[in-house]
Amino acid sequence: MRSAPLGIFDSGVGGLTVVRAVQELLPAEDILYLGDTARLPYGSKSPETIRQFADQDVGFLVKRGVKAIVVACNTATAHALPSLQEKYDLPILGVIEPGIEAVLANPAAERIGIIATRGTIDSHAYQHALALRRTGLMIYGQATPLLVPLIEENWMDHPATRQVLATYLNPLVEKGIDTLMLACTHYPLLIPILRDLLPAEVRMVDSATTCAEHLSRELARLDLLHDVGGVGKLELHLTDLSDAFEALARQFLKQSTGRIHRAVLDA
Amino acid sequence: MRSAPLGIFDSGVGGLTVVRAVQELLPAEDILYLGDTARLPYGSKSPETIRQFADQDVGFLVKRGVKAIVVACNTATAHALPSLQEKYDLPILGVIEPGIEAVLANPAAERIGIIATRGTIDSHAYQHALALRRTGLMIYGQATPLLVPLIEENWMDHPATRQVLATYLNPLVEKGIDTLMLACTHYPLLIPILRDLLPAEVRMVDSATTCAEHLSRELARLDLLHDVGGVGKLELHLTDLSDAFEALARQFLKQSTGRIHRAVLDA
Repeated sequence: MRSAPLGIFDSGVGGLTVVRAVQELLPAEDILYLGDTARLPYGSKSPETIRQFADQDVGFLVKRGVKAIVVACNTATAHALPSLQEKYDLPILGVIEPGIEAVLANPAAERIGIIATRGTIDSHAYQHALALRRTGLMIYGQATPLLVPLIEENWMDHPATRQVLATYLNPLVEKGIDTLMLACTHYPLLIPILRDLLPAEVRMVDSATTCAEHLSRELARLDLLHDVGGVGKLELHLTDLSDAFEALARQFLKQSTGRIHRAVLDA
Repeated sequence: MRSAPLGIFDSGVGGLTVVRAVQELLPAEDILYLGDTARLPYGSKSPETIRQFADQDVGFLVKRGVKAIVVACNTATAHALPSLQEKYDLPILGVIEPGIEAVLANPAAERIGIIATRGTIDSHAYQHALALRRTGLMIYGQATPLLVPLIEENWMDHPATRQVLATYLNPLVEKGIDTLMLACTHYPLLIPILRDLLPAEVRMVDSATTCAEHLSRELARLDLLHDVGGVGKLELHLTDLSDAFEALARQFLKQSTGRIHRAVLDA
């Protein structure tokens, strides 16, 4: 069982930032990645539809014998994680819990901004989890639906991106946030420009590295670590293939993707 | 047969600009509209996936007894119209042919800019059709993938939208275009800001009104017009329902949508 691959899925290729963080921390693990590019994005769709899509995504990975699953998508974690954990009999981890832990690792954190898709913000998953863990926090959620399209256009340095970010961030900065949670797996690509736009004292927490650390602890606890040394394989499956998706996958992964397989999900 | 409804579909609610134009021109017609909001957008996805989705969309409408179908989506028209017309035994019209006719209705048109999703631009459907009809045209296609997300955010007046539009339009303006084809059913909502940004002599042609006029001629030719007077019914079906989609639908339709039904498509 320890030598079985990890399953990681996202609505598209943004979850590859999580894959990269997992590869850095747990290089021996084989990884099976599924990106539901045919139906992306999930962030603007309804909870029921996201639950149905996430269920089909998990079904695909379970059928291929993964030992554990990471939901590398904030929107899917927000809306579907509990129902997935109830239905399937293997460890399923989301990206929200690790992000929350990382935010609260700073005992001085008091004013927390959260940027995410509208689906994640409207779910209130981060807001509830933070408020339950520490009293007296001020929490400001900001839906930032244009960031994924801008990142996918590779307009990281475009003046329009700065203008969009200023519109989204100014209300948070005015509230005096000390922490900004980047609650979408696409957003690590914006860290340089965010660093530029935010006051120096604002700490950024992203979903990718925190999720990899959480996964490592959970696999150790469950005695599921593939601790044989060597370098694991990565196999990419996408529900829609195109040159644009392949180029984007390379960009998120910062390495060659190998052959990408076309995934067909069961209804 | 004349009293059967028209079927109109799009990847989302953008095609409602076509519905509105059809209602103005042919008020007596009943309309069954399908928006595939669960899987939108189509514009960034591969030709095969778009053909598969469009086939399922048409299947849904045919099952409900429509007399003719309008593909109110440029990307689906570009990639799927020929295969749909081959497979189904009822009139199926796209939005590209009417747009081309409207562009060429101006005998002086020489330098044509086309703005559209990446899928539509990369299909070269407009470029080929224009070049076949009139020799000597200069045709400039510009993929404008950020416009749909900006419109869906309702940022029609935001400075970022102007900046994005300037980036997209400046190369076309520098080429001295005399006509701009708005080759996406979302784009009519941008006409006021485009009018502001473009030189006064550039003529804009949009998919919605030209498609309604083409439909009217085709229904007359096929003796399918429902010419009884009165006001037809509009029934909206979406594959994903949410408050955001409903608000957007009202905005595109510029009227109340009535009850929106959740559509389940056959695989």
